[in-house]
Amino acid sequence: MGSSAVVASEEVDIIIPTIRSLDFLEVWRPFFQAYHLIIIQDGDPSRTIKVPSGFDLDFYNQDDIKRIMGSKSSVISYKDGACRCFGFLLSKKKYIYTIDDDCFVAKNPCGMPINTVEQHLKNLVSPSTPYFFNTLYDPYREGADFVRGYPFSLRAGRPTAVSHGLWLNVPDYDAPTQLVKPLERNTRSTKIHNVCRYVDAVLTIPKGSLFPMCAMNLAFNRELIGPAMYFGIFGEGQPISRYDDMWAGWCIKVICDHLGLGVKTGLPYLWHSKASNPFVNLQKEYKGLFWQEEAIPFFQSIVFPDHCSTPQECYIELSKQVKDKLGKVDPYFVHLANCMVTWIEAWDEFNPPKETNANTKPHGIDLNNDK
Amino acid sequence: MGSSAVVASEEVDIIIPTIRSLDFLEVWRPFFQAYHLIIIQDGDPSRTIKVPSGFDLDFYNQDDIKRIMGSKSSVISYKDGACRCFGFLLSKKKYIYTIDDDCFVAKNPCGMPINTVEQHLKNLVSPSTPYFFNTLYDPYREGADFVRGYPFSLRAGRPTAVSHGLWLNVPDYDAPTQLVKPLERNTRSTKIHNVCRYVDAVLTIPKGSLFPMCAMNLAFNRELIGPAMYFGIFGEGQPISRYDDMWAGWCIKVICDHLGLGVKTGLPYLWHSKASNPFVNLQKEYKGLFWQEEAIPFFQSIVFPDHCSTPQECYIELSKQVKDKLGKVDPYFVHLANCMVTWIEAWDEFNPPKETNANTKPHGIDLNNDK
Repeated sequence: MGSSAVVASEEVDIIIPTIRSLDFLEVWRPFFQAYHLIIIQDGDPSRTIKVPSGFDLDFYNQDDIKRIMGSKSSVISYKDGACRCFGFLLSKKKYIYTIDDDCFVAKNPCGMPINTVEQHLKNLVSPSTPYFFNTLYDPYREGADFVRGYPFSLRAGRPTAVSHGLWLNVPDYDAPTQLVKPLERNTRSTKIHNVCRYVDAVLTIPKGSLFPMCAMNLAFNRELIGPAMYFGIFGEGQPISRYDDMWAGWCIKVICDHLGLGVKTGLPYLWHSKASNPFVNLQKEYKGLFWQEEAIPFFQSIVFPDHCSTPQECYIELSKQVKDKLGKVDPYFVHLANCMVTWIEAWDEFNPPKETNANTKPHGIDLNNDK
Repeated sequence: MGSSAVVASEEVDIIIPTIRSLDFLEVWRPFFQAYHLIIIQDGDPSRTIKVPSGFDLDFYNQDDIKRIMGSKSSVISYKDGACRCFGFLLSKKKYIYTIDDDCFVAKNPCGMPINTVEQHLKNLVSPSTPYFFNTLYDPYREGADFVRGYPFSLRAGRPTAVSHGLWLNVPDYDAPTQLVKPLERNTRSTKIHNVCRYVDAVLTIPKGSLFPMCAMNLAFNRELIGPAMYFGIFGEGQPISRYDDMWAGWCIKVICDHLGLGVKTGLPYLWHSKASNPFVNLQKEYKGLFWQEEAIPFFQSIVFPDHCSTPQECYIELSKQVKDKLGKVDPYFVHLANCMVTWIEAWDEFNPPKETNANTKPHGIDLNNDK
């Protein structure tokens, strides 16, 4: 039950940042028990977190991270969930699933609990379609296909690097929206005839389009995009929080677009239990709310030189452009850009290159012609 | 019931091409009766088509079109549904809904018949979000919103020009897919616990992404995009069929992208009753299947000069580029490009300009920076 039919469980790490408790793992036991878990304690390392028994699990706190990464541990930040990326660095697995500790198992329309890992792996092993929109959504899902007019040369698709899952119950809103709509829930979960509904779709986010990546329910192919999955420095001691996953999402999307990799969003759903405090969130977000107005046009205008053919090369190039362009907005971005470089140095140290990377560039007809 | 709450019925024309029979209108009576219908007979004008009573309806055949358009009637082609665009030209309404005569009323998950016109109008009067992907789909739908990380400057959205509805039962496949999967149906309509499921979503197709536009269940804002909604010359006497709506879809998408207009797809669903003959379809499509491999990169590379600020100006510019670039693929495209110019001449003749067009260009931060 826990092991997916599409990928051996040995190829997957589940990475969980937690500040308070791992009690939520109990409901995930049937689905997570077959996998290796990496738990990152987010915050005060002297605080004891009870680790549930019966899981194949490694536990790291701030002290461990300092010991393992040495001076480079300064690129890992705390109290915002960003420290999960230490697990991405440490893992040796092909696939990563990361989830927040306030997320529980949702039910599908038949009332069955949803195995999020299995659906993410399905998303990741099937191709993406970033170059042309299929109106019946993911053409690789059972019962679906490419519709009339979909170019045949594009039907092989591109490798999928990222699978972004969604949430029932408490939606992922920013503080102003939380304040304005305190009672809003994802109504697609409304039961009709006792059946839980939601948007039953997976789709590729087209090339050239950015999206708000939430890390609550996120999976990716570490071999394809791992080095770019850095969650930056956000949270404790930083001028901005709650943008760690957004930042990573902007970075990975422009890099996936350049490398010809796909990003999917939609299924699987999980149950997000609690809305965080909107006043606290507003304080954390407020610089982000206006900085993102500069950051989005910046990311929309990113062009990578042709010689950037790996996530590492793209990421280093991106860090230079962040320093050049966003550094003018605030010195914070210069610091962030420096951390991006150190992150890649750490990545290469922990993940020495094995052999030549497979060519991940688009093939067939020229699809990069909007560049 | 027939009249939508969002738009007065006087602002809408329903345009239907038919070759055989209008019997299907009986099931649509509760929803269509409040609107004016324009029926275009597709094919032999001497054949009698029984017109159901009790509708506010105008009926045109080939002879009428020749009489009304004179020499310019050569841009209207037959036996492929393309003649529906004569209705677009003739209409004086703000909103157009066009539907095929083998399409019936589908039911929503509560078992209620779906009012396609009403949902299309909802899609068209609410804005689109072409510049940034919202992971909870259309943020303007009840119970949804923009998620965390969605830039506030983009939340006003852009005017919606096109609403592309989908189909339950027989999906819109090309002939090769029909041949390979003769029994496939849109399984999202599978009943679970006696509830009809489908992907309950509307979303904006992002800027820069083309899509296969099907005319079976299509609505648009004629004031915003009407002049570009030309279905070309396909069908009888032409080397290619079943690409009339695809062609129009490629044209309107690049023009909407340039003008800062939105294209939505998803709801509403209708029930597509019959799969057409795949062998006949293969004969009709076969040139299209390889021509589209040239046409798609062509459309992906289209850049309009800044001075093109109306659909007409964009369409004339597009016709030039079609002639220049696709004319090399086959002389057919030179002929098509000439018809595109004549179409605009006819459009301007039937729709003399009233006053200055509203500015439809993006505002706020520069969103065209990928050009």
